[in-house]
Amino acid sequence: MSDETLSGGLEAAGTQRQDGFDLSQWSARRLERVEHALSDWVVADAPAGLGETMRYAVLDGGKRLRPLLVLAACEAVHGNEAAALRAACAVELIHAYSLVHDDMPCMDNDVLRRGKPTVHVKFGQAQALLAGDALQALAFELLAPDGTAVPAQMQATLCRLLARSAGHAGMAGGQAIDLASVGRSLDEAQLREMHRRKTGSLLQASVMMGAACGAASATALSRLAAYGAAVGLAFQVVDDMLDVTADSATLGKTAGKDAAQEKPTYVSVLGLDGSAAFARTLLEQALQALAASGLKDTRALHALATMVVNRDN
Amino acid sequence: MSDETLSGGLEAAGTQRQDGFDLSQWSARRLERVEHALSDWVVADAPAGLGETMRYAVLDGGKRLRPLLVLAACEAVHGNEAAALRAACAVELIHAYSLVHDDMPCMDNDVLRRGKPTVHVKFGQAQALLAGDALQALAFELLAPDGTAVPAQMQATLCRLLARSAGHAGMAGGQAIDLASVGRSLDEAQLREMHRRKTGSLLQASVMMGAACGAASATALSRLAAYGAAVGLAFQVVDDMLDVTADSATLGKTAGKDAAQEKPTYVSVLGLDGSAAFARTLLEQALQALAASGLKDTRALHALATMVVNRDN
Repeated sequence: MSDETLSGGLEAAGTQRQDGFDLSQWSARRLERVEHALSDWVVADAPAGLGETMRYAVLDGGKRLRPLLVLAACEAVHGNEAAALRAACAVELIHAYSLVHDDMPCMDNDVLRRGKPTVHVKFGQAQALLAGDALQALAFELLAPDGTAVPAQMQATLCRLLARSAGHAGMAGGQAIDLASVGRSLDEAQLREMHRRKTGSLLQASVMMGAACGAASATALSRLAAYGAAVGLAFQVVDDMLDVTADSATLGKTAGKDAAQEKPTYVSVLGLDGSAAFARTLLEQALQALAASGLKDTRALHALATMVVNRDN
Repeated sequence: MSDETLSGGLEAAGTQRQDGFDLSQWSARRLERVEHALSDWVVADAPAGLGETMRYAVLDGGKRLRPLLVLAACEAVHGNEAAALRAACAVELIHAYSLVHDDMPCMDNDVLRRGKPTVHVKFGQAQALLAGDALQALAFELLAPDGTAVPAQMQATLCRLLARSAGHAGMAGGQAIDLASVGRSLDEAQLREMHRRKTGSLLQASVMMGAACGAASATALSRLAAYGAAVGLAFQVVDDMLDVTADSATLGKTAGKDAAQEKPTYVSVLGLDGSAAFARTLLEQALQALAASGLKDTRALHALATMVVNRDN
């Protein structure tokens, strides 16, 4: 995410500098660390072009919302920064691999992503498949480093949270529902269940992984989980709205594809105005959960939730 | 692997009941536990048919060589049995997902596996892609359970070993080399490097994960790594031989496909006799490493190495 985009989202929200907090500045510093770490960890020297394909899938693009949520949650609990940076990159690798596989011809068959040709268009389907697989493995590798910088207990917890959110009960399960729902109409409950898994699960896990880098009370964890669930769903509601209202250049991906692919969306179920109202309700829920968490420095989490709802791409 | 197959391999070796050890009996008990655990853990209730696809990819078939190596290594170090059962299943899930993706049209485009239609033939490419992705995530989920049955330190080590062996430096990297080598001739060193990653890495990791379920000396770990490397390479040399000498019914997969796909193999580089001699040399190396490990009960590891070289499917 560029600084411009972050600022734009926040200006729309009108809450960007509450308590003197500047999300744009906060994010810029952290994104620099994340981009640097991703570039270090997604190695170019993997054999037979695999490294190049993996780097193309991960670097130079992406909003990095998930890494920012990890880092913001870690800061809210005063957690282990080395662990949080690994967790931030691991979540982003899972997100990146899911996009690579999701874009393939047997899935959404999309050719444009982050303003560039999709991975299979650029490198072929076989390399795209393998690069996605290798990115998933690398995510877990990042979470389980040698040495003592990240305590074993934390490594195990981070692996558990990421595996559960990425797998059949989370993201992959949501993709399966998505696949089966093309051309069907879902009611709001079914749509919410699909998105809770497909998108919400990994966004919520980002928050929980950040929190797992420190020591949070059971109350704080429970409230952060509620925050993560609300932000995760709000993200998808806004995504569905943007697919209708934005153009491909702004989105960096093909606009209008939900309707073209006859996918049920929040816009198709609630309409544009209803979706906007629902997104605002979810934002309120997220912010109330934060307020009830007992955590002191939740300004970045607050600002990120606001940005998710007010973003324009 | 059926009992018949194990016995057949061992009878050919003529070493099956050294020291009164009966691999067939040893394996039968452990395979029962593995099959039961896999059936419990690969859940049918994943949404939209995903669970059914995952179970089809994993259950009712497969030699389960990797799980047996995990359990044998764990027993050699008197390790944590609950951890080893999880590790055994996790390794098998990674193996199973790699087969699902490898069989897809954009990779090897194979229609027969374990005597049944491949996953994408049965369930479609999109489901095959997702089921593979979900199986990889589930592997790591199994290694990082809640509770205290598996200590956190052990969970972290198991995740580390599995992630490294499955990813760009291991299996996925080997697949990329494989993909790039079609129609080319490789020399023995290049072929060995490809197979060290593609097949050997996960087989060696199986041994090391079993060992990580207990407390082994540095010497024992180093010798077990050598054992795992030799067995891993021997497995592939024999695989290349069987692709030429066995028929599809015996193999349970399409025979002769290496030549049909112009893939470089040990048979193409060393010939059949040369490959057989190389496999015997590797078996000797494996058994010497075991003998030098200082571990007392290595009979199952001994018998498994012998079986790998003498198997007929």
